[in-house]
Amino acid sequence: MKVGILGGGQLARMIALAGHPLGVACTFIDPAREACAAAVAEQVASPYEELAQLDSLTAECDVVTFEFEHIPAAALRYLESYDNVFPRPSAILVAQDRLREKTLFRDLGIPVPPFASIGSREEFDAAIATIGMPLVIKTRTLGYDGKGQKVIRCAADIEAAWAELGGQPLLAEGFVPFEREVSMIAARDRTGAVACYALSENVHRDGILRVARPYTNAALQQQAEDYSRRVLDELEYVGVLAFEFFVHDGGLLANEIAPRVHNSGHWTIEGAGTSQFENHLRAILGLTLGSTETVGHSAMVNFIGRMPTAAEVFAIPNTHLHHYGKADRPGRKVGHVTVRAATRDQLEASLQSVIALSDKMG
Amino acid sequence: MKVGILGGGQLARMIALAGHPLGVACTFIDPAREACAAAVAEQVASPYEELAQLDSLTAECDVVTFEFEHIPAAALRYLESYDNVFPRPSAILVAQDRLREKTLFRDLGIPVPPFASIGSREEFDAAIATIGMPLVIKTRTLGYDGKGQKVIRCAADIEAAWAELGGQPLLAEGFVPFEREVSMIAARDRTGAVACYALSENVHRDGILRVARPYTNAALQQQAEDYSRRVLDELEYVGVLAFEFFVHDGGLLANEIAPRVHNSGHWTIEGAGTSQFENHLRAILGLTLGSTETVGHSAMVNFIGRMPTAAEVFAIPNTHLHHYGKADRPGRKVGHVTVRAATRDQLEASLQSVIALSDKMG
Repeated sequence: MKVGILGGGQLARMIALAGHPLGVACTFIDPAREACAAAVAEQVASPYEELAQLDSLTAECDVVTFEFEHIPAAALRYLESYDNVFPRPSAILVAQDRLREKTLFRDLGIPVPPFASIGSREEFDAAIATIGMPLVIKTRTLGYDGKGQKVIRCAADIEAAWAELGGQPLLAEGFVPFEREVSMIAARDRTGAVACYALSENVHRDGILRVARPYTNAALQQQAEDYSRRVLDELEYVGVLAFEFFVHDGGLLANEIAPRVHNSGHWTIEGAGTSQFENHLRAILGLTLGSTETVGHSAMVNFIGRMPTAAEVFAIPNTHLHHYGKADRPGRKVGHVTVRAATRDQLEASLQSVIALSDKMG
Repeated sequence: MKVGILGGGQLARMIALAGHPLGVACTFIDPAREACAAAVAEQVASPYEELAQLDSLTAECDVVTFEFEHIPAAALRYLESYDNVFPRPSAILVAQDRLREKTLFRDLGIPVPPFASIGSREEFDAAIATIGMPLVIKTRTLGYDGKGQKVIRCAADIEAAWAELGGQPLLAEGFVPFEREVSMIAARDRTGAVACYALSENVHRDGILRVARPYTNAALQQQAEDYSRRVLDELEYVGVLAFEFFVHDGGLLANEIAPRVHNSGHWTIEGAGTSQFENHLRAILGLTLGSTETVGHSAMVNFIGRMPTAAEVFAIPNTHLHHYGKADRPGRKVGHVTVRAATRDQLEASLQSVIALSDKMG
């Protein structure tokens, strides 16, 4: 079987690595010269909007999928005409736009912070008045890892936020003083069957995910599965989707969805019956989904900017190294380490050492 | 890091797949046009005896290793002069020769069936008289998967065995009416530290391994670990080694060693803290070995001749598919499926279905 991927970063790399044992070879489109998926999959170095390349990819591959959501809209609209593209481009278009996304959540009865669309300075001022401070101003499109957003805490922040973000379609959103951020990785197959992983608790630093680990809370788990199913069914989604929530006042508030495998699900490689990468492939290829049950106790730590040596990682017991094969660069996700242990105590002991190692790297 | 491998079959493929997350890229030498490791590693299509290629490989790679033991002796002797080749070629030379191997076991105080060297018809007849029937006649070199051996059960079998195997160096060995065959996968790192997996119980059909699974027996486990350490230390071995034993009269009798990752250890990919492939890489690269503890309940089934579809495999719960990317061919190992489950009952239920599927394939 052959799978085409738009994008050739670490997510495509890990999808391709999950593919080989299934007899699945991946080909990806990425204009970047040093796409790290190229070590394990075939690269087509082309802009995403090159329609002839999209024709070839959909023709040569059993199915075509995405490793990131910021695909040019022209390419997505073109791919709409092919029936072997999963998830459907229409679902990606919703996830690209924070306003459409939030509106979808609200329409499906999923709790969201108060929000408003901003198309002008007047609407900007009106949103501040209606929602009240503190609030967050975000670009409607192209934001990730905390980029493209500003918090307005008091009147003094207003002009700076407008200066930085004004002039493009924006979303204003009530600032949620959340207790924790969690995410649900869920997969929906071509028959509509859904499989959900354990909620992941996500800790960020400088807007970038640092630590993700299964979070056990039966009530929130059930809530998250319920909300995820609503979104997956509404979008007639096929593949893995990540749904981020804030935990606030004992319940979940929807933050955003990512229509793809997700950094907060990397622990599933060792920590679940089937990894998110394999289940994404199984979903889009029309195969039955695999078990999402947790295996042992696990947690994942990102490495930003610089990778430790393998010797440094393996000096810590129960570690699983995932090197993305990228050059070091400040602020760049270059790899992750998952700790999986038989007991919670073993996990915690190793996890603290891995976090310390990550902090040392950048 | 870069690792060179002699051989490009499924073992090299799985070593290379284990390497990518560690930031290890593999290059392999294999004269075959359709080496299945080529999907995930770089191929040098050359005979193994091409000394210039061995020079380049050892120069370009941090370390060089083997996926099979039947490397031409000339190549092994040449590689002796390089200090970045693991395991040492001298260890491979011992494992290539059933007489040297058995003699080593005996010298180390490891129980073996009675055996004798056969260099002539006279020695052949003498061995039959001394050991008694039934006995097994094996070629000293190049045997695997039951090839190159004949059982002599009664006088009527003698001439046929000589006609088939006579004229080459042979080993005669008492036929062991064993209760089960087990193997120990053990790794020894560059500092001499040894890590052993749970014993694997191996069931063959037509001389080819069909099912392998962890076998729990504390006394035999301890015996196997003790014997493995003796061999590993004596050979100053670095890497993963498989040691096959017969269980006979409640104890172990040494059968043979394979100086490499081994089919009976494939269940470690899902069923142990660290797979045999990763631990082989860690050992030869001078890294600390990873946990060999079992994870859940697992068993592996080989697929011979023909692969089922992924849909057929995934219709069975808790299955993990390993497609080797080879063309179907009668008698050829084309893939394996590991079942890993949280309980023994779940394992058994799935395992029976996987065995039935394997039987259907060939």
